[in-house]
Amino acid sequence: MNFSSKLLENAVNEVSQLPGIGKRTALRLVLHLLKQPISHTLHLTDSLNKLVEHIKLCKKCHNISDVDICEICATPSRNSEIICVVEDVRDVMAIENTAQFKGLYHVLGGKISPIEGIGPHNLTIDSLIEKVKSGHIKEVIFALSSTIEGDTTNFYIFKQLEAYNIKTSTIARGIAVGDELEYADEITLGRSIVNRIPFEKSL
Amino acid sequence: MNFSSKLLENAVNEVSQLPGIGKRTALRLVLHLLKQPISHTLHLTDSLNKLVEHIKLCKKCHNISDVDICEICATPSRNSEIICVVEDVRDVMAIENTAQFKGLYHVLGGKISPIEGIGPHNLTIDSLIEKVKSGHIKEVIFALSSTIEGDTTNFYIFKQLEAYNIKTSTIARGIAVGDELEYADEITLGRSIVNRIPFEKSL
Repeated sequence: MNFSSKLLENAVNEVSQLPGIGKRTALRLVLHLLKQPISHTLHLTDSLNKLVEHIKLCKKCHNISDVDICEICATPSRNSEIICVVEDVRDVMAIENTAQFKGLYHVLGGKISPIEGIGPHNLTIDSLIEKVKSGHIKEVIFALSSTIEGDTTNFYIFKQLEAYNIKTSTIARGIAVGDELEYADEITLGRSIVNRIPFEKSL
Repeated sequence: MNFSSKLLENAVNEVSQLPGIGKRTALRLVLHLLKQPISHTLHLTDSLNKLVEHIKLCKKCHNISDVDICEICATPSRNSEIICVVEDVRDVMAIENTAQFKGLYHVLGGKISPIEGIGPHNLTIDSLIEKVKSGHIKEVIFALSSTIEGDTTNFYIFKQLEAYNIKTSTIARGIAVGDELEYADEITLGRSIVNRIPFEKSL
């Protein structure tokens, strides 16, 4: 690209480093900002600066939070004996939206992935084991995505938790509610038959 | 969305106001920034702030520029008797990339569009007429996109220029180089036949 302005070129280069945003999209976004009042862009950049400068990770569950102990961990009515292990804040938001889980979370911050250079020590696994060691936890629910990395991470944690007398479970895999059987993949359909549940529980 | 952090929520709301970026994409982008070193985000926001605070429009052609008179207008070797009328900086970049045009540009800043509330006085049409009035210009090339808005804008300017003794032209519409005839739309193919050129000129 042949920019008429160094300022424009710098801005486009920076924006195009975001994932999934190429040079053309970046140029479109930046020109959009130039058509808006300056205050619009200043609000945007201010909110991003404040985010990266002041964001914290909850000291208990490692979820993104504005304060040392996040809102979920700080709610006394939640059951602190059940821990749901998730990958990142998006999973917490997704599960919270269901309003079906009243325990606490533990955010790993990723999955074990040798290809991406992420080992167990890049995640918050040690902190989870410490929590279990303290003796208060009764159940750990694994809610990582069912990829090779997710299964590896689940298994790694499971092995470390075996020494302690707690229940471990994993979220149910099966046909999504409302989906047609014929379009389901065989592995999911197979698992949903093997792990069938008593009919009265599905009512 | 159920955010665990007000800082995160603000950042996602701001980013999702960009065109074509929804809440989920905004969350993905913001979480990506949180995984990077802080300096990465500070560079991004700094480049955007500098852009909106210091950008200028060239006083001659109204193109985006870092200085009062842009690089193209300031190049003495360019032919200042030919003016190419374009919509915005992207069109200037596209034409400059061809290296086929050695005249100057005039950036309108948009097209006449009653639906979007853009009238002739929101564009730099008056400034173009003034340039032509000054008597130095020999040819004006219309290079707006061939939409209803583009054609309207071309016609509006054309009518105002009729009083002056200058040549007006418009870029050729036709089948793209390398394209197959059978996939071209009828209007483009029709025009390319009506406006055929001597064969020796296409060599």
